[in-house]
Amino acid sequence: MTINKRFLLARRPNGAPVADDFTLVSEEVPALSDGQFLIRNRFASLDPAMRGWMDDAESYMPPIPLGAAVRASTVGEVVESKAEGFPVGQWVTGLNAIEEYSVGVAGGFSQPIDVSMVPSPTNFLSVLGAVGMTAYFGYLEVCKPEPGDVVLVTGAAGAVGSLVGQIAKIKGASKVIGIAGGPEKCARLIERYGFDVAIDYRGKSVDQLTAELAAAAPNGVNIIFENVGGDILDAGLNNLAMNARIGLCGLISEYNNAGAKTGARNVWQLIVKRASITGLLVADYVPRFMEGIVEMAGWMQSGKIVFDEHIDHGIDNALPAFLRLFSGTNDGKMVLAL
Amino acid sequence: MTINKRFLLARRPNGAPVADDFTLVSEEVPALSDGQFLIRNRFASLDPAMRGWMDDAESYMPPIPLGAAVRASTVGEVVESKAEGFPVGQWVTGLNAIEEYSVGVAGGFSQPIDVSMVPSPTNFLSVLGAVGMTAYFGYLEVCKPEPGDVVLVTGAAGAVGSLVGQIAKIKGASKVIGIAGGPEKCARLIERYGFDVAIDYRGKSVDQLTAELAAAAPNGVNIIFENVGGDILDAGLNNLAMNARIGLCGLISEYNNAGAKTGARNVWQLIVKRASITGLLVADYVPRFMEGIVEMAGWMQSGKIVFDEHIDHGIDNALPAFLRLFSGTNDGKMVLAL
Repeated sequence: MTINKRFLLARRPNGAPVADDFTLVSEEVPALSDGQFLIRNRFASLDPAMRGWMDDAESYMPPIPLGAAVRASTVGEVVESKAEGFPVGQWVTGLNAIEEYSVGVAGGFSQPIDVSMVPSPTNFLSVLGAVGMTAYFGYLEVCKPEPGDVVLVTGAAGAVGSLVGQIAKIKGASKVIGIAGGPEKCARLIERYGFDVAIDYRGKSVDQLTAELAAAAPNGVNIIFENVGGDILDAGLNNLAMNARIGLCGLISEYNNAGAKTGARNVWQLIVKRASITGLLVADYVPRFMEGIVEMAGWMQSGKIVFDEHIDHGIDNALPAFLRLFSGTNDGKMVLAL
Repeated sequence: MTINKRFLLARRPNGAPVADDFTLVSEEVPALSDGQFLIRNRFASLDPAMRGWMDDAESYMPPIPLGAAVRASTVGEVVESKAEGFPVGQWVTGLNAIEEYSVGVAGGFSQPIDVSMVPSPTNFLSVLGAVGMTAYFGYLEVCKPEPGDVVLVTGAAGAVGSLVGQIAKIKGASKVIGIAGGPEKCARLIERYGFDVAIDYRGKSVDQLTAELAAAAPNGVNIIFENVGGDILDAGLNNLAMNARIGLCGLISEYNNAGAKTGARNVWQLIVKRASITGLLVADYVPRFMEGIVEMAGWMQSGKIVFDEHIDHGIDNALPAFLRLFSGTNDGKMVLAL
């Protein structure tokens, strides 16, 4: 009898998730039907977006049902199979859950992957996974870069942000400015990810952030890749160049905010600068993922992009590992080894 | 000696403008230099955007200097001229000020107009002026309509909004919903401007407005032409169709708000629906005005669009006439006869 440890959503969090919002259970692995296969999940991706899936609110995906395992992208190995094309030993990635075993189905969300092409299978949760594809398609398709652009990336030391900054440079940005929390992350932006300017947002008002951005980009920014929202987005809006494009990828400053949303207070600046904010979601680009994976893998192999993964271990640590995303104590793409 | 009554900005309003923010002076008309001409302004356009010009804040135009006449579009006649192409008797329109006489300069903002082609010279401040061109280019170029779109217009009974609703119908919208204040305006939307649905925002919360919009547009709105902001914009954001386009024309709910700006609280919905907000300003389309004027004049002559003008009389009434824009007591494009 194989036991499956699973991390279930027990109730909907009010603000920041707490331990009582979840239950860790041990269940027997289910029997497979024809066309199914059993995945031993080795790694789960922890992403800010998962916080939104825990709420009972209309979004781009249905909420995680109460009593269900917490939805997450995983990478794992097929250990039992009644499905053609998914033999035992095949590595797969897909949208599963934080649980040691998931049942996959041929033609479903899980895709076979060749882990021999990358240094670590976890790379399929970071640079070659949804995170990498968010950076790649979000920046290129929504922000529509032109050579010479001045680019602002918020949440710049995060998994998506650090890649966006590097892609911006590859695509001819004249200056890439990153906003991050704390001196260590800011140093990493410059030294490791090649940003030109790093601004530490901690302890600063909108006015202070506005002034620092104005000093870094005296003619305004042509592109903002926005992951944060709140004061940071407002400071960005105060520093737009004419016809600036803002790609709205996330609003991490709001996800644990149980009260009224802040949103974007300075939208008036969109009129002043004839600028736009456009929401982006990686799911729209699934049919084009191979195009992104090939180009990102090439940049990775030639050393044009670097990235970091922060791996915490054990399903018992699912909650503290997830909360790192909001406290900012992770150093790179957050992954949970199962 | 000719006396010029002028309506000057004496100090910057804090919130809603009050009488002490302005001074009415009588000055001698200045002597003309070569290349200049003297305009007897017959009508001044009163527009919500003028409130922003009174603040000392970075915008798309410099603030009105303290002690200067309040900037406004006008229509008037040349009564004295030292400029070729602007003979005495020529009607002109341009960005001048609330004053009985303005000095124009050849090659400047004032353009000759043929008032014989329209029922009233004031039409060059409404349907064929900046208001009409804002509706025309803002809707067609920024909102990018497609046949069958469900369209939401806020501030729908206003000068711009009432035209946008009619242009939307001409361009194949399947349903045009207008939000306005009070039962009379809502009746006018349906009966006079041909909107399909009118929603009265007065006394309603964001949740109530969200529900009324959802009932009117069960599959969401493809386009929002936004003039208002605040709760009304938030309710619109809650009802977007996938890939919706929001043309941001104005934020009249904020212009007299001296405190923190509300902005757009529900920008998260831009991600959910991969939608965009784009700021628009009519000034960008000045080189293409003739194209818009020709098409709008054609629609006007064939009865496809109707419009209303609300004319108050006398420079002494400049402030109460201007404040109608915010109390909503005007019935159509607000014009001051000088």
